Amino acid sequence: MLEKRTPLQINQAIKKIMEHTIEGKTEVVSITECDQRYLGEDILATNDVPLFTRAAFDGYALRLIDTADASSNQPIELKVVEELGAGMVATKEIGPFETTRIMTGTMVPKGCDAIIMLEAVKVVEKNGEKYIVIKRKVKEGDHISYRGEEAKNGDMILKKGTKINPGVMAVLATFGYSKVRVAVKPKIGIFVTGSELLDVDEPIQNGKIRNSNSFMIASQVRRAGGEPIYLGKLPDVLDTCTNAVDAAIKDVDMLITTGGVSVGDYDLMPEVYKALNGEVFFNKVAMRPGSVTTVAILNGKFLFGLSGNPSASYVGFELFTRPVIKKMLFCENTHLRASVAQLNVDFPKANPLTRFVRSKLYFENGKLLVDPAGLDKSNVVMSLAHTDSLAVLPGGKRCFQKGDQVQVLLLDDEGSSDTMSR
Amino acid sequence: MLEKRTPLQINQAIKKIMEHTIEGKTEVVSITECDQRYLGEDILATNDVPLFTRAAFDGYALRLIDTADASSNQPIELKVVEELGAGMVATKEIGPFETTRIMTGTMVPKGCDAIIMLEAVKVVEKNGEKYIVIKRKVKEGDHISYRGEEAKNGDMILKKGTKINPGVMAVLATFGYSKVRVAVKPKIGIFVTGSELLDVDEPIQNGKIRNSNSFMIASQVRRAGGEPIYLGKLPDVLDTCTNAVDAAIKDVDMLITTGGVSVGDYDLMPEVYKALNGEVFFNKVAMRPGSVTTVAILNGKFLFGLSGNPSASYVGFELFTRPVIKKMLFCENTHLRASVAQLNVDFPKANPLTRFVRSKLYFENGKLLVDPAGLDKSNVVMSLAHTDSLAVLPGGKRCFQKGDQVQVLLLDDEGSSDTMSR
Repeated sequence: MLEKRTPLQINQAIKKIMEHTIEGKTEVVSITECDQRYLGEDILATNDVPLFTRAAFDGYALRLIDTADASSNQPIELKVVEELGAGMVATKEIGPFETTRIMTGTMVPKGCDAIIMLEAVKVVEKNGEKYIVIKRKVKEGDHISYRGEEAKNGDMILKKGTKINPGVMAVLATFGYSKVRVAVKPKIGIFVTGSELLDVDEPIQNGKIRNSNSFMIASQVRRAGGEPIYLGKLPDVLDTCTNAVDAAIKDVDMLITTGGVSVGDYDLMPEVYKALNGEVFFNKVAMRPGSVTTVAILNGKFLFGLSGNPSASYVGFELFTRPVIKKMLFCENTHLRASVAQLNVDFPKANPLTRFVRSKLYFENGKLLVDPAGLDKSNVVMSLAHTDSLAVLPGGKRCFQKGDQVQVLLLDDEGSSDTMSR
Repeated sequence: MLEKRTPLQINQAIKKIMEHTIEGKTEVVSITECDQRYLGEDILATNDVPLFTRAAFDGYALRLIDTADASSNQPIELKVVEELGAGMVATKEIGPFETTRIMTGTMVPKGCDAIIMLEAVKVVEKNGEKYIVIKRKVKEGDHISYRGEEAKNGDMILKKGTKINPGVMAVLATFGYSKVRVAVKPKIGIFVTGSELLDVDEPIQNGKIRNSNSFMIASQVRRAGGEPIYLGKLPDVLDTCTNAVDAAIKDVDMLITTGGVSVGDYDLMPEVYKALNGEVFFNKVAMRPGSVTTVAILNGKFLFGLSGNPSASYVGFELFTRPVIKKMLFCENTHLRASVAQLNVDFPKANPLTRFVRSKLYFENGKLLVDPAGLDKSNVVMSLAHTDSLAVLPGGKRCFQKGDQVQVLLLDDEGSSDTMSR
């Protein structure tokens, strides 16, 4: 039975997916376990930063007014009344022509309004007392970090959905977040289908290929912030597939299958969805590769029926599955970071469908350039290893030339876009 | 005792570090455990890809010559002699005006030199036999993927040191690498020093700050591909520090300390290195922040004495420690990916030292723009959370203006550069 499918435009397909309500969950983990996760709540400052007005460098804390007339001809002397190590708090207020030896990060003693750096003074001793000699005027606030200049108690510092990176870790620790509320990693079940598939440790044989999709997609799931759960290989048998999908969907947040979605006698995912009363959002998209992608909802959970072709399922995942994962991680922007880049080769043949070319991005003199990563066919695996971006060539009668500006979607970038295209 | 230190130029400092011989190790892990690791050997094709000449789409395999005269006025009919499901191998050779129904990925039967897509033919039945009707000429090689067109058995596909990503996973699985030789993650010990440091779960108090550096640096180590091992807080006491460093260096591949490196009475890392007979490569670099970075070798292992200031240690790590980790991971290029970007703000004050400004990168119409990520002082933590790049402002008498082209180093990017600057 050949079904005539009406392809949906890419943006329409993505819109349908994103309009479906799906909620992420949160959990609390130790700060030592939260790296690379996504914040499950806004992070507020729990104190002023700095908490106290402090020295930005090693030096001497002093009163501006005392140095007002200092010059090389008229050096002034300040008496060192106290020496503070890191973490120590001054016990003495600074009076006229007095100073306190101070360390980077030490609280500035009362009465002081500037720091002079260690290297800028000479130390002399008189009658067993230390003095520093200053030969220039000091400016107000020199080398001082003022209380609250970075953040005030209660300030919103980081938004829910922010990916935790080294800088975020520093902020969390600064504010005493020894426990961090993070988004639960969405559990993504993965089935591969196709009687032609061998396991990775089986010897190769004519007519067959090794399953590579489950490993690739598991890695894509991890890159997107999800937790992949490989559920195994399914044969091209309707009942077996239907039962397997029905059983698996209960234990995961969404389910990905590869293969079994083409327009053909042996292609059965659409039949599986029908048998399970899934609501099919679409079963064809006006794009290449990946046009036979099917997306459905079963018991409120997403089923992504991706192509069995590696490049097609790769692209299908990034366009359709990734944004749902990012939404469940509370990310503000769920789509791949997009930019414009200059094509580095010709594409002399027009294509009625919008193409996503596996590409490699270059920077040259502050400009972005993009090159295909290798052989550009939907069944090609090799080029994917060198792919860091997808160049988008809009469908139509247009061919593309070296030098043309095209949209690119960045795969490894931590940045993101609010829409798939602009 | 104040020691006069002579600052080294940044490139000189990096050169000294990179000239020191240090070797990575390899280990073998399951393909399911290798994601995001680095290849410990070159990956060769273990068979041709495709292994056999196969269909790129669902359709009918045929002989070109039979369709030579086909047109809408003169349709031709081919008899369907066999139907092949996925993974099946043809039992029949195709004779004149014969065809075989074929699935995506199926081996092309002998005698065929093109595939016509399912959608392009009409199927008719006559006397219980199936025929397809073709109304146009087919081109040689249409929808066929030829044996070895992606890779030939023995081809070098991926270099040692390549980071494993979704595409690399697909390649490894395709070639049957169920076990993968990867680089051992270098073990990086981390000490923080400073009596002013509180633990993350301690209440904040005047004169003190919470330790944030160990969490930040652990995250940087992970981002670079290493395994961080937090060794604890050290007090500002020479003997204690010396013994701790001496004991710890045995169990790690390199050691990072933060704090205790400024030019001051209480700063003791240089003393520790001296006490342990470490070979100090440098103890000052002409840069800001991070000028007081000290790098030494002890028992053939690197000791990185980074500043206690968060931004300074952040930058010091990325410039000096990261490349050593990448070298131990066999990466061809060990330095942060560099590009040129247009400054989005003025820097009206010149600085004799080269500055590394914590920045955020933007794309606009295919051009790179760079903005400071926030308050730009070496002790500032907040801005680091939004930092994805470092803008490099060369030291000297020059100030910088909005619109100037400056070098930027990309922090989150999987790409890399062979040198620190160009």
